[in-house]
Amino acid sequence: MTTIDTPIKSGLEGIVAAETRLSSVDGLAGELIIAGFPVEELASRATFEETVYLLWHDTLPDSDSLAIFKKAFNEHRTLPSATIQLLRAAATSRVSGMDALRMAASTLSLDAPDDNPLGDIQRDALILIASFPTIVAAYWRLLQGQEPLASRPDLGHAANYLYMLSGEVPSDARVRGLETYLNTVVDHGFNASTFAARVIISTQSDMISAVVGALGALKGPLHGGAPGPALDMVFAAGREAAKAEAYLRQKLERGERLMGFGHRVYKVRDPRAEVLSTAAERLFRAGGDMQLYDLVRSVEQTAVALLAEYKPGRNLQTNVEFYTALLLHGLGLSTNLFTSTFAIGRVGGWTAHAFEQHETGRLIRPQSMYTGVKNRRWERR
Amino acid sequence: MTTIDTPIKSGLEGIVAAETRLSSVDGLAGELIIAGFPVEELASRATFEETVYLLWHDTLPDSDSLAIFKKAFNEHRTLPSATIQLLRAAATSRVSGMDALRMAASTLSLDAPDDNPLGDIQRDALILIASFPTIVAAYWRLLQGQEPLASRPDLGHAANYLYMLSGEVPSDARVRGLETYLNTVVDHGFNASTFAARVIISTQSDMISAVVGALGALKGPLHGGAPGPALDMVFAAGREAAKAEAYLRQKLERGERLMGFGHRVYKVRDPRAEVLSTAAERLFRAGGDMQLYDLVRSVEQTAVALLAEYKPGRNLQTNVEFYTALLLHGLGLSTNLFTSTFAIGRVGGWTAHAFEQHETGRLIRPQSMYTGVKNRRWERR
Repeated sequence: MTTIDTPIKSGLEGIVAAETRLSSVDGLAGELIIAGFPVEELASRATFEETVYLLWHDTLPDSDSLAIFKKAFNEHRTLPSATIQLLRAAATSRVSGMDALRMAASTLSLDAPDDNPLGDIQRDALILIASFPTIVAAYWRLLQGQEPLASRPDLGHAANYLYMLSGEVPSDARVRGLETYLNTVVDHGFNASTFAARVIISTQSDMISAVVGALGALKGPLHGGAPGPALDMVFAAGREAAKAEAYLRQKLERGERLMGFGHRVYKVRDPRAEVLSTAAERLFRAGGDMQLYDLVRSVEQTAVALLAEYKPGRNLQTNVEFYTALLLHGLGLSTNLFTSTFAIGRVGGWTAHAFEQHETGRLIRPQSMYTGVKNRRWERR
Repeated sequence: MTTIDTPIKSGLEGIVAAETRLSSVDGLAGELIIAGFPVEELASRATFEETVYLLWHDTLPDSDSLAIFKKAFNEHRTLPSATIQLLRAAATSRVSGMDALRMAASTLSLDAPDDNPLGDIQRDALILIASFPTIVAAYWRLLQGQEPLASRPDLGHAANYLYMLSGEVPSDARVRGLETYLNTVVDHGFNASTFAARVIISTQSDMISAVVGALGALKGPLHGGAPGPALDMVFAAGREAAKAEAYLRQKLERGERLMGFGHRVYKVRDPRAEVLSTAAERLFRAGGDMQLYDLVRSVEQTAVALLAEYKPGRNLQTNVEFYTALLLHGLGLSTNLFTSTFAIGRVGGWTAHAFEQHETGRLIRPQSMYTGVKNRRWERR
């Protein structure tokens, strides 16, 4: 009910909606903890399967548990045939990759072997995580006029995603680069998509409904919907580092924002930026286009210096979107795949948050303040 | 970021998340205002199209505006062919009606004529509201082994839904009964599904993503997912009013809950219960099964009396689920259709809330309190 005396917490800023053991974001300290691990400690070492296991069980798996866990994911990589049909229709309509992923994810209860309309929360979480790379890769290939590839049971989650995109078994360096990315973005407190998943499952709804809602939120430009522009700017700045300064200065003079710098939460160094910067450097040094890499880093330095000049005191550092773009570009992914690839990582966190919220048994239902009139009467017009 | 000193608002109870002019729920006064109208004033008089126009534009339409508005809905009733294909596959898998509706709704961007990945918020809202009855009726018929029916352009929104279910043009009394139901449930403050829609679109995501997320929340048993049991209890209580007391007394002695009585928000009379009770009586008196009607009302009186005896001071009144079940049963709808029919009404509110939230431009992003450890270190196991 509405109580006029209650202050409005617009956007719920500063309101603590629940407890979580999954991640801790401290923007003032520049610290991100994922299930007990500083992100710097975990991201470059764990496989994605290990990270998901960690989030779900609050401990890393031993080798037997990991083998069982990987096998379970492996068994759920294949999509229902109706899902593939739908992706073909989506490719004909050329809908965005995130729309295709939302449509396809919503159909993943089609092959559920039981008749419980609420599904099996554990099994559905496995199906979702296992299916996301299959969906994203299949849709990407269909958009290029290529047939989707069957998954390779001998490859892990990250390696198999790269394989299903290109048909090539990726190098260890590329797999490591992708796993580091997926681990880095797997969870980040109560961002809007994670919160949407928790709101949905708080009605005791099912896992697929919760994750489909989260996908919808992630699609928005204020959340995960626009990680491409960071690198677009670098390319627009020119293939020559020398010309970048003039280009960026012109943008700043016009009052335009430089994509890829600054963050709403982190006022100091974003620890994810550090991890992804290192991962990108490793990937490029292991056989990437070093000329491109050097250009990007040079443009970055120019941008940071110009931001300090034009926006003094704001401490606008290179952010996670910038290094994401650099790393994923280095992995050979088109910018059209960036948000979907973000989802392939974040679904690990969504499912873990949904488990956590589901266990509380508590409905999330805030109040609203009514600002309209109350005394309208019906008149036959 | 997490601040340990902040108190946790578990479930966000009592937190005012935003302003709205769409509806006001006052549980202490037993008052529900929909866009300025007390629900008793609006629900039994407006067509559903008028109510949606009212929510969107904060005024009732004149006859010209209404004609244009109805025509716009009419033009969006047909589903993309891939959506129908998907519903056929869903019927083969016999997924729940809400799963089928979520899957199909998620595909509604397939026929979007432009290439903006965020769609057109106005057009998509029209498509969603117009398509819901087509999806629900088509899926229902496919489950019965019948072919979906084409919509009837000469029929309004509510009448056409009843027609597409049965193939019969409904009587005025049945259309009035359904419109009263749809208007009564069209909006109800920040319930979990409406809030989910607002969280999703607060990232500047699209209307279809927001409504698909809301559908997922509505599916949950703590929200709209279980309106059937109220009437099941009446039927279980027996076809004879005389036997109902012993049956209900036995349930209460065992500590079981009587479905269809009491409400979390309304501590006095729920105004929706009143409206739907009157609507049900009108519908049955206009040619319904009066023997059934009298039985239900007799069981209801017995239940209310027994609740006063077993739970003194709790004031457990017949709630909206009870009269919903009675009214929708009187309209010939199977209990399997109840939640989907709820969605056909509530999508009017979801779209209006999504417009309202979108206009604020504000991201909804609460905080969480981290309860895990922070100092785990990686060890090669």
